Amino acid sequence: MAESQNKRDLAHARTKINFDVKDMTNFLYGGEANVEQRRYIIDLIAKDPVFNKDDWGWLNHTDAVKRGIAMSTRLAEIKMEHDLNDLDFATMMEAIDDTLPIVLHNGAFIPVITSQGTEEQIEKWIPPAEKFQIIGCYAQTELGHGSNLSQLETTATFVKETDEWEINSTSFTAAKWWIGGLGALCTHAVVQARIFIEGKDYGAHVFVVPLRSLDDHKPFPGIEIGDIGPKAYNGFNKMDNGFARFNKYRIPRENMLMRFSKVSKEGVYTKPPHSKLAYGSMVLLRSVLIKQMALYLSRAVTVSTRYLTVRRQFNNPTSRNDSDLNPGLETQVINYPMVQNRLFPMIAQSYALFAAGSVMMEMYIGLMTGLSSGNIGALAEVHAMSSALKSYCTTFAVAGVEESRKLMGGHGFSYFTGIAHLFASTVPSNTYEGDNYVLTQQMARYLLKEVKTARTNPDQVTPYSKYLLLGLNKSAFARSTCSVALPEDWLNLAVQLAAFEHRCARLAYELSDAVEQGGLDTANPKTWSDHNIECYRISHAHAQYVMVLWFIQAVRDASNPETEVERRAEPASVKVLERLSNLHALHTIQTNLADFVEDGYFSPAQCQSLRAQVKNIVASLADDAVGLVDAFDHPDFLLNSALGATDGDAYKRLWDKAQSEPLNRRQVCDGYEEYIRPLLKKHGEFKL
Amino acid sequence: MAESQNKRDLAHARTKINFDVKDMTNFLYGGEANVEQRRYIIDLIAKDPVFNKDDWGWLNHTDAVKRGIAMSTRLAEIKMEHDLNDLDFATMMEAIDDTLPIVLHNGAFIPVITSQGTEEQIEKWIPPAEKFQIIGCYAQTELGHGSNLSQLETTATFVKETDEWEINSTSFTAAKWWIGGLGALCTHAVVQARIFIEGKDYGAHVFVVPLRSLDDHKPFPGIEIGDIGPKAYNGFNKMDNGFARFNKYRIPRENMLMRFSKVSKEGVYTKPPHSKLAYGSMVLLRSVLIKQMALYLSRAVTVSTRYLTVRRQFNNPTSRNDSDLNPGLETQVINYPMVQNRLFPMIAQSYALFAAGSVMMEMYIGLMTGLSSGNIGALAEVHAMSSALKSYCTTFAVAGVEESRKLMGGHGFSYFTGIAHLFASTVPSNTYEGDNYVLTQQMARYLLKEVKTARTNPDQVTPYSKYLLLGLNKSAFARSTCSVALPEDWLNLAVQLAAFEHRCARLAYELSDAVEQGGLDTANPKTWSDHNIECYRISHAHAQYVMVLWFIQAVRDASNPETEVERRAEPASVKVLERLSNLHALHTIQTNLADFVEDGYFSPAQCQSLRAQVKNIVASLADDAVGLVDAFDHPDFLLNSALGATDGDAYKRLWDKAQSEPLNRRQVCDGYEEYIRPLLKKHGEFKL
Repeated sequence: MAESQNKRDLAHARTKINFDVKDMTNFLYGGEANVEQRRYIIDLIAKDPVFNKDDWGWLNHTDAVKRGIAMSTRLAEIKMEHDLNDLDFATMMEAIDDTLPIVLHNGAFIPVITSQGTEEQIEKWIPPAEKFQIIGCYAQTELGHGSNLSQLETTATFVKETDEWEINSTSFTAAKWWIGGLGALCTHAVVQARIFIEGKDYGAHVFVVPLRSLDDHKPFPGIEIGDIGPKAYNGFNKMDNGFARFNKYRIPRENMLMRFSKVSKEGVYTKPPHSKLAYGSMVLLRSVLIKQMALYLSRAVTVSTRYLTVRRQFNNPTSRNDSDLNPGLETQVINYPMVQNRLFPMIAQSYALFAAGSVMMEMYIGLMTGLSSGNIGALAEVHAMSSALKSYCTTFAVAGVEESRKLMGGHGFSYFTGIAHLFASTVPSNTYEGDNYVLTQQMARYLLKEVKTARTNPDQVTPYSKYLLLGLNKSAFARSTCSVALPEDWLNLAVQLAAFEHRCARLAYELSDAVEQGGLDTANPKTWSDHNIECYRISHAHAQYVMVLWFIQAVRDASNPETEVERRAEPASVKVLERLSNLHALHTIQTNLADFVEDGYFSPAQCQSLRAQVKNIVASLADDAVGLVDAFDHPDFLLNSALGATDGDAYKRLWDKAQSEPLNRRQVCDGYEEYIRPLLKKHGEFKL
Repeated sequence: MAESQNKRDLAHARTKINFDVKDMTNFLYGGEANVEQRRYIIDLIAKDPVFNKDDWGWLNHTDAVKRGIAMSTRLAEIKMEHDLNDLDFATMMEAIDDTLPIVLHNGAFIPVITSQGTEEQIEKWIPPAEKFQIIGCYAQTELGHGSNLSQLETTATFVKETDEWEINSTSFTAAKWWIGGLGALCTHAVVQARIFIEGKDYGAHVFVVPLRSLDDHKPFPGIEIGDIGPKAYNGFNKMDNGFARFNKYRIPRENMLMRFSKVSKEGVYTKPPHSKLAYGSMVLLRSVLIKQMALYLSRAVTVSTRYLTVRRQFNNPTSRNDSDLNPGLETQVINYPMVQNRLFPMIAQSYALFAAGSVMMEMYIGLMTGLSSGNIGALAEVHAMSSALKSYCTTFAVAGVEESRKLMGGHGFSYFTGIAHLFASTVPSNTYEGDNYVLTQQMARYLLKEVKTARTNPDQVTPYSKYLLLGLNKSAFARSTCSVALPEDWLNLAVQLAAFEHRCARLAYELSDAVEQGGLDTANPKTWSDHNIECYRISHAHAQYVMVLWFIQAVRDASNPETEVERRAEPASVKVLERLSNLHALHTIQTNLADFVEDGYFSPAQCQSLRAQVKNIVASLADDAVGLVDAFDHPDFLLNSALGATDGDAYKRLWDKAQSEPLNRRQVCDGYEEYIRPLLKKHGEFKL
């Protein structure tokens, strides 16, 4: 194989694309201005040597944390130099592509003070924080406790005599643990601790706690701080996730954030008025995660689509896409139907995630607008929706990242795919911001309430739960079946949505019936936990329904002249988007087929024709696959992949990367004299 | 929470076990003698400081390879000191728990020479190899080619004048790549290269190639050697996977292994008689993998079962297993049904893997006995079976390893779970020894032949394909349904097996019909590849059927007085084994439910009762879970896990591990003066 066959293969694949890649990119990012701004920001990072990724594969945790600190301080400088808005800052983090010690400073320290501090407290802490005269982190999790705030073991005892709090870690399991930024970088922390006033426990509250001296960075007496060590798969390697143990450490009373709860000089505790605003930040974090999953999964499939286009293996004399190239060459791996059927649905999922990320952010903004004017009507639904989508999307997107790597076969196990790093940094998303299993209870609880509403006030059911009305007439519902007669009926969007609606309705009523028959209610933990498996099922089913619906709507809007121009696309783009939308819907059904079949909604013949239809759509995307991943517009700096670079020159890049391996600086390896030579000579020299 | 609550919780859990753990361990490993020998070998390794794992989490690739070399040479010495049999050697590798530069020396270099060399060649190379006077690797894969031997780009051109071969890498894509042991350690390689004699291509053959000088370990002129760099997830970090490029490098003619093909001094090529024996080594490698998966998955679930027993989160006043402990404590996480329903099926799968590994090895031994007496009758079936099981077992076992890690929530992302290392070293098994997708074509091809046999000579169908006879009468088969009426009918083993048989028969005939309707045959690559998705389905379905069958048989044998004593178990053990067997079968059905429902074999009511039954069995295993993982008998050295150690002292160990983090040797981090201080002071000092 000639040395540039790789490049020729990818270039050739690009000649077959049936739509304008640029147009598709604009559609994905909501207009050309956004696309250009994103490129501008990524380029800004790419040009800065501190963000260079060339040696990342060789950094151990010790070296990586130092690098993380260097990157953190540069990030702080850039933030001060350029007055970046939230979107630009997010893009910058995307380009930097790693979790840094400083991220919780802007991500949690400042927001918590801003939202829970009084005017005076904000005035005191925020200006120095914004100038990085102090750097903060957020310390909630302990060695023995994560999400259960009420059982935190760190205590803050009010000392009336000195008007102080005494922060104490009651045992080593009370040590704050996993705290990003704590291990090496931060001077301050926002600390969650249970307050005790005259022996009475008032529950968890938030304190600003100075950790390290601003003179020499040494931890203050009474605080034991350290790094918790390396993480799975080298993930978060540059992050100084740390621990801190407090030994009767004193801070002023005013360091408790008192916008809501207050404690006076006299030790009088004032209860907070319940604030629903707190939910807003959870919804935001989860909504942002959906958007991020779109970027992550699309990166992984970009790498694997490009590599599989240039990788050739085994002869296939009549293979389709190769026939116009040299017929003596082996088959491009991407031409195998098995490969297409694993890969293309993930391309479709990436597009669906872009759509879902946008809608979820709009829902969040709508919610916050409402909340700020005292309207909490949407809160329950948006909170449940963000929980369900976070759980479902981070589960399949991260699994898809690893699947993209495995699709690349042997070379997929090289660090230089760029995908291993991506998986290592995204897989914790399945656990943080709510464990993906636990979180599904939110949507289940919400839907159980909606079932009651459907039975009592059917016109008050919210739009996304309207499918519950289908189940009101039990016997009619039990008899309902899918209307597909001909294979092409599967492309009918109403048919697709009806199938998801039917499934959701069935699962919701089954859960509701089970809960009622047991005489149980959702507030009783013993009995409720018996239904958690069903909660997971209905929550993911609902998330899938909404994802399918939103993607269908985005594609419909794309060709609607009424839609704002940034969300429109050219007819050629819309045509392939429709295929993606169909593939996304039908593949999701196929992957969860039992749910659609086990009550007889689909017939055996429909199952067969569904599978055939999925194969057809997959095959129809073959010429466009490279264009569809090019449209994600991920520059090479971001991909950091020898196998998935824009020019397709995979083997050359893999070769070059191997040459940079530090072991190769020596002709004879370290360890030869010490270990190898004595072994070889142990029984005398071998002579030919 | 008191510091030793963790230990109390695990000890308390052990008081509830309903069977004798020692008896179960003996059952799993085939008798007490095996158990003791395994412990003896693991202990041998654990005591040797070179195999200490304490700093593994911090080694970068450069340091790790040096460690790998130190471990390799010690391994060689142990091998020479003790005359270990194959099983002991495998146990030693299990205890060492990482892939080392030397493993291909005994794993491939020696076996290839022994099986493909002439008597003289064996006489020449094997004695020095056994004394480690030379150390070898196996070089097949190239940058541009993996499994397609016929297209390898490395050439060996016969030079009649000097009676030599000239080994050449035609381009850089011809470079040997991924070769374990090549990057730093080995002096020799067995190299696959295509031979050319007077311009004619005779295909790939095998050569013994000296790589590095036995005097100073420098690569010989004409060979460019190096390490290919780090791998995904830090996997194979101690392995010097390397590349080699040959520039018209000369070796003697006799270095071609000539037991089968021969090339004479005059350049006359003699064709090999076809040897089916070559299949034997593939079957062996795949069979060994099944056994390994049992050990790997069982390790992961050991860690997570123990940790989840000591981890407590949220109050559950009426939670079951806690009621006899301090009622003020939070709930043990393992008591949540959702957790049990994720975890316990993997315990059952681990037990099923132990059984499958044993049967597969017996099949291999039977095959080799047959082959050695010229009987190739079993070859096709055993080859297909080992392929199908390798694909299925490595897929679910490795996924289970990662799932065990995620089950542990936040702390699961720590390196100190021990599971991240396990995943990183096992996940390539999905790709090597045959990609898990490609491999499924073997079983599909075999079953298509069996379908023909069923139609023409039904009495000649092999036992594991007997289910094909069910489908001979098409209309009767289409009408057949599952006989379950009452929930407990699911525990009827005949019912379970019938369901798997029905499903396999249906999928096999569907594939057969599709192939025939297309007028296609399995030898035509174009059309055959269109069926690869269905090949994957039927192959995994068959593997699941066989796994279920073998586990049922092993449990049945365990209480049969006719069975040899090493494979028997006490009644109390058998009782819980029966639960595991039921859970394994029914959970496998539930996970693949669509396949059983979409042709109407299961009714809607049966689907519901199946799910309920799975929940019931899971709940019934709650008291035995810790005992079931203790029975795997994995010592702490092997687990290398702070969270899953035998004593359960998870928080204390995690704390201690963090103290060993090298970053914590300094009070102020490296990078403070250079980066942090300038940032903090940039806008003047912050004063309170």
